[in-house]
Amino acid sequence: MSTALPARGDDPPEPPGVSAETAPARSTKVRVSADGLRAMVAGIFRARGVREPDAAAVADALVWANLRGIDSHGVSRVPRYLELFDKGDSIPDATVTVERPRAAVAIVDAHAAPGPIAMNRAVAEAISGARECGIGWASVRGTVHTGAIGYYTSRAAEAGMAAVGVVAGVPNMAYAGARGAAVATSPLSVAVPAGRHELVLLDMATAVMALGRIAQLKAAGATLPPGVAVTAAGEPTTDPALAAVPVPVGGPKGSGMSLVFEMLASGLVANPIVPGYHGGTKEGRRHRQNGFILAVDVSAFLPLDEFRATVDETVDAIKSLPPAEGMKGASEGGMGRQAGGGVLVPGERGRRCERDRRSSGVPLGPKVWRELTGLADTLGVAAPAPLEG
Amino acid sequence: MSTALPARGDDPPEPPGVSAETAPARSTKVRVSADGLRAMVAGIFRARGVREPDAAAVADALVWANLRGIDSHGVSRVPRYLELFDKGDSIPDATVTVERPRAAVAIVDAHAAPGPIAMNRAVAEAISGARECGIGWASVRGTVHTGAIGYYTSRAAEAGMAAVGVVAGVPNMAYAGARGAAVATSPLSVAVPAGRHELVLLDMATAVMALGRIAQLKAAGATLPPGVAVTAAGEPTTDPALAAVPVPVGGPKGSGMSLVFEMLASGLVANPIVPGYHGGTKEGRRHRQNGFILAVDVSAFLPLDEFRATVDETVDAIKSLPPAEGMKGASEGGMGRQAGGGVLVPGERGRRCERDRRSSGVPLGPKVWRELTGLADTLGVAAPAPLEG
Repeated sequence: MSTALPARGDDPPEPPGVSAETAPARSTKVRVSADGLRAMVAGIFRARGVREPDAAAVADALVWANLRGIDSHGVSRVPRYLELFDKGDSIPDATVTVERPRAAVAIVDAHAAPGPIAMNRAVAEAISGARECGIGWASVRGTVHTGAIGYYTSRAAEAGMAAVGVVAGVPNMAYAGARGAAVATSPLSVAVPAGRHELVLLDMATAVMALGRIAQLKAAGATLPPGVAVTAAGEPTTDPALAAVPVPVGGPKGSGMSLVFEMLASGLVANPIVPGYHGGTKEGRRHRQNGFILAVDVSAFLPLDEFRATVDETVDAIKSLPPAEGMKGASEGGMGRQAGGGVLVPGERGRRCERDRRSSGVPLGPKVWRELTGLADTLGVAAPAPLEG
Repeated sequence: MSTALPARGDDPPEPPGVSAETAPARSTKVRVSADGLRAMVAGIFRARGVREPDAAAVADALVWANLRGIDSHGVSRVPRYLELFDKGDSIPDATVTVERPRAAVAIVDAHAAPGPIAMNRAVAEAISGARECGIGWASVRGTVHTGAIGYYTSRAAEAGMAAVGVVAGVPNMAYAGARGAAVATSPLSVAVPAGRHELVLLDMATAVMALGRIAQLKAAGATLPPGVAVTAAGEPTTDPALAAVPVPVGGPKGSGMSLVFEMLASGLVANPIVPGYHGGTKEGRRHRQNGFILAVDVSAFLPLDEFRATVDETVDAIKSLPPAEGMKGASEGGMGRQAGGGVLVPGERGRRCERDRRSSGVPLGPKVWRELTGLADTLGVAAPAPLEG
């Protein structure tokens, strides 16, 4: 269970198809209702100085990740947020500021506010730009831990936008041809509103396998699949003890995407991360993130319903394809297999997981549950009773 | 030599690191000056009814691909364009029309004009939207063969824009978990202007290996690397005789990107390709492409020179990383190795190739050269004399 691992580093959302987080909860896990969990986490953030409604917003983003099966980006990160507050790397009651230098562009300066607060604001600004100009772009400068970025693009899609989201962070992934951590596992998310179907939601790291999943296999003493990690010297390895750095998906493709994402996310807000990190100073290695949201107002192009119908037809075409048994793909693993396989579209596994967890509760590892309830107790916040059975 | 293969299908630009096209020309190849080649190709298009300056624009886009070492997207495609004219799938003198429904959005209807004509217009429209609103988006509806899309994003970057380009086409790649060709190898390009360094140019297919390269290995009877292609039944294979469909990079990541690119590129212009293709009609399988260009006016965010300096520092940080000998990466293969390895940034290998070919000429396979000069002769167009040596 990755929930039992220290939630350190910036492992990005696990993409559909490589997550093992969506497996049915084992008996050692506690199940908590999403509402109860959200209330407790919001209470913890409020008690640590985050204003309402920001505390509720951060809790919602984290619990959403748990509901979707991306537990590595969920409430297990709460202690890490508090640690960032303690170190001064994040400011619980920072006032996010917004500049709008041009009609379709906003620059959201987080001033070290927690990621969801800044990213939610970016979503609102990108949508507002898109409503006026057809598309809107909002950059986020200087935040921390943004969580599962599919949360933000989903919100834009619910407003009738096609949305793209990117986050750049401190290097934790290999760069094709180089030794050591060179670039971040910077995620890309694209959300597209559908009609009969639910929204199509791509949310992928630029690494082959997310850090959290590698840590899980490491903790379990399991051999890594080939092509997932390299040693400190940059040699490919399947030995979890030697695995030091995750590998970019497609070699130069994944690391190239990560590099240009850094240039777009960090360069445009004059807050570069990669050069400072390799400068080796303490400041350069400090946890921080930049990002951006692009919203495309579908109704500028064609009636939204017509677009939704086209997306539905496209989803239907993909879902009616004959499955390939031998091929590693979206039908493997986790909820996909549990639900009987078939060809999945991006976001479908997460949505199935969400449906399940909304009714049966969010499973949490015993260590995470102990940590959260311990924090709640210390801060005078009520903890929800675990669900029965 | 892929130039000796029939230039069919829509294999996208080969990304840095997987192209074998940039190897030094063998003695069987003819070398032609880029200017001479451009003039001949423009003459062929003019003779086939493409107006000036469109004929020169198409020739420039194709020769650019050859200069950059992406020969599969270069002048070897000329006979394919003429075939599309003959079949009525492309109209040589189509008048491209532009709507601007909102300040930052343009819809460029190609009316079946050749790709470079429509895509160049999209670049101009995206830049114009970006100058006014900070960002600009131009969709292209109903074109054919757009070539190497890095050409278009590069042009936007030369105007001080950060640029993103995507093209969607007829399915020719596997979708994770499904059998057969399901989605296109739709490329993604991101171009970022630099200062001391030349622009950073990512230009990658969503397939592990481009179709053209697989066809090359097939023609050479070579075993394919694992993870590159599947059989018609969807089973992984390294046997070139059984390889039927290229595999998406990162499984569900690459095919997920391709799917959402189709929704953005084709859905927004109400010209979906994927559902029609799987409908199995002749019309549904007809060659066609849609695409879009996003331009981000850097100067809306910060002074362009400051941004360029940040990109330079980021490139410097990457290029000074210690190389990893054991890792498959940008330092392997083609021009990278030829030039002595080291850590490369996206676009660097292509630029080295361009420098070389600008001075020593563009190498063309004997079949391509015969075809082109044959066409030129038939159409009364002068062919350049091959370079000596």
